Amino acid sequence: MKEFKVFLREDEIPKQWYNIQADLPTPLQPPIHPGTGQPIGPQDLAPVFPMNLIEQEVSQQRWIDIPQEVMEKLLLWRPTPLHRAYALEKALGTPARIYYKNEGVSPPGSHKPNTAIAQAYYNKVFGIKRITTETGAGQWGSALSFACCLFGLECKVYMVRISFDQKPYRRMMMNTWGANCIPSPSKDTNAGRKMLEEYPDCPGSLGLAISEAIEDAVTSKDTRYSLGSVLNHVLMHQTIIGLEAKKQLEKFGEKKVDVVTGCAGGGSNFAGLAFPFVLDKINGANITIIPAEPTSCPTMTRAPFVYDFGDTAATTPLLPMYSLGHTFIPPPIHAGGLRYHGIAPLLSQLIIEGLIEPRAYNQLECYAAAVQWARTEGAIPAPETSHAIAVVIEEAKKAKEEGKEKVILLNWSGHGLMDLGGYDSYFSGKLVDYPLPEDVMQKSLKAIEGLPKPVAMKKGNPA
Amino acid sequence: MKEFKVFLREDEIPKQWYNIQADLPTPLQPPIHPGTGQPIGPQDLAPVFPMNLIEQEVSQQRWIDIPQEVMEKLLLWRPTPLHRAYALEKALGTPARIYYKNEGVSPPGSHKPNTAIAQAYYNKVFGIKRITTETGAGQWGSALSFACCLFGLECKVYMVRISFDQKPYRRMMMNTWGANCIPSPSKDTNAGRKMLEEYPDCPGSLGLAISEAIEDAVTSKDTRYSLGSVLNHVLMHQTIIGLEAKKQLEKFGEKKVDVVTGCAGGGSNFAGLAFPFVLDKINGANITIIPAEPTSCPTMTRAPFVYDFGDTAATTPLLPMYSLGHTFIPPPIHAGGLRYHGIAPLLSQLIIEGLIEPRAYNQLECYAAAVQWARTEGAIPAPETSHAIAVVIEEAKKAKEEGKEKVILLNWSGHGLMDLGGYDSYFSGKLVDYPLPEDVMQKSLKAIEGLPKPVAMKKGNPA
Repeated sequence: MKEFKVFLREDEIPKQWYNIQADLPTPLQPPIHPGTGQPIGPQDLAPVFPMNLIEQEVSQQRWIDIPQEVMEKLLLWRPTPLHRAYALEKALGTPARIYYKNEGVSPPGSHKPNTAIAQAYYNKVFGIKRITTETGAGQWGSALSFACCLFGLECKVYMVRISFDQKPYRRMMMNTWGANCIPSPSKDTNAGRKMLEEYPDCPGSLGLAISEAIEDAVTSKDTRYSLGSVLNHVLMHQTIIGLEAKKQLEKFGEKKVDVVTGCAGGGSNFAGLAFPFVLDKINGANITIIPAEPTSCPTMTRAPFVYDFGDTAATTPLLPMYSLGHTFIPPPIHAGGLRYHGIAPLLSQLIIEGLIEPRAYNQLECYAAAVQWARTEGAIPAPETSHAIAVVIEEAKKAKEEGKEKVILLNWSGHGLMDLGGYDSYFSGKLVDYPLPEDVMQKSLKAIEGLPKPVAMKKGNPA
Repeated sequence: MKEFKVFLREDEIPKQWYNIQADLPTPLQPPIHPGTGQPIGPQDLAPVFPMNLIEQEVSQQRWIDIPQEVMEKLLLWRPTPLHRAYALEKALGTPARIYYKNEGVSPPGSHKPNTAIAQAYYNKVFGIKRITTETGAGQWGSALSFACCLFGLECKVYMVRISFDQKPYRRMMMNTWGANCIPSPSKDTNAGRKMLEEYPDCPGSLGLAISEAIEDAVTSKDTRYSLGSVLNHVLMHQTIIGLEAKKQLEKFGEKKVDVVTGCAGGGSNFAGLAFPFVLDKINGANITIIPAEPTSCPTMTRAPFVYDFGDTAATTPLLPMYSLGHTFIPPPIHAGGLRYHGIAPLLSQLIIEGLIEPRAYNQLECYAAAVQWARTEGAIPAPETSHAIAVVIEEAKKAKEEGKEKVILLNWSGHGLMDLGGYDSYFSGKLVDYPLPEDVMQKSLKAIEGLPKPVAMKKGNPA
């Protein structure tokens, strides 16, 4: 009988995370202080993050043990299944073999809890009692609420007001796990109060929500802030996805993989699947590794490599990354998790090295791909995930044209059950594409003209 | 390391369904025609269901092969994991070992597609091109939409108007799988048009939606009707749940199970887990098998054993079952799937035989149980599932009092991500209990006084 999916036994789950910093051909350039222009040190971050996570952020150690307490929580839903997409292959008439890693089976419905669990644990052992964060569409806020609940930590989520009002189910999820989710701007911080005074009906923004969450963390007792993507340690916590997938591909009898893909907003689900395969590529394997993004927020495919703030409100250290400028406001596409002005420094460096090859897709094409997926493989993808499905369909068609039996691996990062409004707009013909006009991008980039410039280094030389 | 869950390999999945009719101590009494009072034959049902499913409905064969085409669709998400609920056990301080079968991992999020897939297949091979059904809260309509999509059948879902308006995400799920979901009453049937003429703002009812779906099926070309619970063949399709669970308990090293539980509205998810264990009990095993229902719709715990219509509009054959009367309108509890006036004839017969022991729970107690579950085991249960969790917590506390290492097995029938409104009402203190007043029940039962009476038979003698 055909094998549709492979589970791992729990004793086969990877026991360590993979830290790609140990294998980068060129080390990351350091984050720098926006005031001094000097590299920042661990102590500069200590009011915001616990020191054990800061140590992970800068660690050059290749393999880092997953603590037993973290593993016991991950085992609530991990290892996740690796499926073969026979029905989609058949519908496409492709000779390619398509595999997908199903991260949608976690209680909050995406890959996000892989790092939320780890971050909650490290905060707890560092003596932290309470974690703050921001959330846009709500996927990250849900995951951190879930993780804090399991470790008995308080959790406060500043949710962008327009999403808070439009997506009440996300707030209800967070409440069910005991978190306090409030709309941002709020009256609980100086940043929020200031905004409400000037603009009482402010719909909020991710940048402002970050500012509120950080202000709350640095001014409250036993409290730290948590970020759901972009940073090195966050991406590392996701590598359990790719490490599991490698073992599962072996069980499927696959000796090599040709294409690896995932969507990338901050970059964490893509990194989680891809980094163990990037290591193979560094060691000589011939793999095409593709992060997918929206044409409306084309960080990786069109933006320059710069030093920029991580948040819209310009309160974080400057990070070396591809960025559209921290004041960039992406169009209202449904893939809220891909509406970020920058991309993780680690992904940025891999792009410079030519180790990963980003592509951008329009919203309508992604929904068409998602609907084809749901009508063949069954499960309804998150709008973010649909971007990676667009890659899969493109590559599977290419394999058909070339008559090649390629192996394609996809990170199915989450289900779309909390985001069905986008499908409704798609079917009713209301959905449109928003390719980014060049002049809008250039205008946004003007805002970061005065910031320090990094040099794009590749294998020790300017790229 | 502790084992949190056990997967089966795909080649270990059960290859046959278990038909409990072969092992009933007393055979079921036949459905009868409301006009003639005589038992109905297969031909009477032929306009409504395809003959291959009617044959399954009356089959006395113990094991029935699962067709390869059905298996290939079930393998999109099956076998489902069996988890051990260590965190809940710890929170309760119980010596009991609690296991749960996770049916929430299916694409529509519940056990319902186990039968939807099978029914779509049998309709297809019988030459049917189009299936109609009704849906209340939307769980069944979603599952049938999904199944019809996979087999290339048209699907039309009549959704009770009040739910259609209040739960737009359910309709969007059905649309994503290509189904046509319309509010009932509709202009597409005589029954719907008649109601709309008399009562243009009619919020609809499950009974009327059934009438519309059946009228559509019997008057349209190549069309049949499909039901998501209650009938013998529907319950049989769910037995893959319990057959998988038995193998998984063995892998966990468990030699016997003490308590088996699931919630029961029509009875299908409970039957799916429980029937293979009922067989063990018939063969002498000492197992307590508990279907759980709401106190607001206490079919199994308070209603009489009668002949009654399956639908509110009194269009179906009369079924021998515990029933509150087909005109009974349950209070607006959030567990929409448990708001049915009757219970499957097979469950009714097992209650008469004393092989299963129903219990009823209040809504508030069930939400408290569901929240304790979400905050320990992680995943948010459907409001229906919370009734089975209430049993688990009660039994685990009893095991603690008695100091006994009991093994408790639960069917975690679905997640609550599409039904978070109930949790919101619970946290805001708005939720209330609706225990059924005796006089309301007696009034409802008056409506079936004139119908034929079955004799409750037990092992060949009156019960």
